[in-house]
Amino acid sequence: MEHHSILSNIAKHISLDQSETDYFISLLKTKNVRKKEFLLQAGQPCIVINYVHAGVLRSFYKDNNADEVTIMFAVADWWITDMPCFINQNSAMTSIEAIDDSTVFQLTKEDLDILYARVPKFERFFRILMQNSYIREQLRILQNLSLSAEERYAKFLEKYPAIALQLTQKQIASYLGITPEFLSTIRKKISKGLIS
Amino acid sequence: MEHHSILSNIAKHISLDQSETDYFISLLKTKNVRKKEFLLQAGQPCIVINYVHAGVLRSFYKDNNADEVTIMFAVADWWITDMPCFINQNSAMTSIEAIDDSTVFQLTKEDLDILYARVPKFERFFRILMQNSYIREQLRILQNLSLSAEERYAKFLEKYPAIALQLTQKQIASYLGITPEFLSTIRKKISKGLIS
Repeated sequence: MEHHSILSNIAKHISLDQSETDYFISLLKTKNVRKKEFLLQAGQPCIVINYVHAGVLRSFYKDNNADEVTIMFAVADWWITDMPCFINQNSAMTSIEAIDDSTVFQLTKEDLDILYARVPKFERFFRILMQNSYIREQLRILQNLSLSAEERYAKFLEKYPAIALQLTQKQIASYLGITPEFLSTIRKKISKGLIS
Repeated sequence: MEHHSILSNIAKHISLDQSETDYFISLLKTKNVRKKEFLLQAGQPCIVINYVHAGVLRSFYKDNNADEVTIMFAVADWWITDMPCFINQNSAMTSIEAIDDSTVFQLTKEDLDILYARVPKFERFFRILMQNSYIREQLRILQNLSLSAEERYAKFLEKYPAIALQLTQKQIASYLGITPEFLSTIRKKISKGLIS
């Protein structure tokens, strides 16, 4: 059953009856993206929120020096979009690329608003999703302030155990806010047992 | 009517009938904090979310060097807490101090959970509040990456026009992520008309 994963994700926080389930599924559009393809590019309209059914994606921002800053990675069972632009229906500020072949289920902002009106319990689901997203960002800000680069790398491995091997040094470094060279130094220290 | 402000804040997103209004108000506890007093101190249990009825508050984090990093300012009609710790009912990582004599209405996590169950439309209200908080943090991260310190100071003045005069140079600098000395240089340039 193709939608089993997203329904389990929803069921973590709310219970749907059969007609609500059918209606919710009817709003989803499946999209496949190949490795290195873009799901969203900065400057394009950001009209959907994506649930990752399979694969790995990365959202990033290009700063004034054209350096890429990784905002987040999304693995299977995560949700990803450019939230400020999705909610305000602006052009995207960030891009989302597939790091591996991926399949996502997409929900447009328009359909999400209809969903809230027809099945109000989705307000609870997205309240918890938004709350978790906000908390994740707050903790990341505090960790950036309080932890050393080594400790942040350890937290990263804890948070994304399955994907660390699929990412380039540059991608991980741009998430941690350090240079690839510095990450390389940390990894060498770990491999020599200098950091546990 | 003491609760007019918070009810107007709620009414931006949901409509309550009289009994729902009375019930909501019955859950609120009023707290007054004098200038320089703490509403929350790092290490204490974080059990309430606060609506600012009057005054100005600041939440901050002390990093490893004991430098204070300002997370946010909250003026009248804003909500403030240490969200990760409030939701997970952990000890606070951040502190909240009154920058001026302030009055807040407090709602405990326990009462908020009961409120969601009894008046589910509050799920919508807090979904939008969490969504706005998440978007605000995302935009702040992107602005820190993309704007110069001068531009970030201009955005700060736009966002908090009423309180800029009540804050010390150190407090504003710690929000902008720059040194007080650098902020002083920016302000001098502005006063000389070198930055508009």
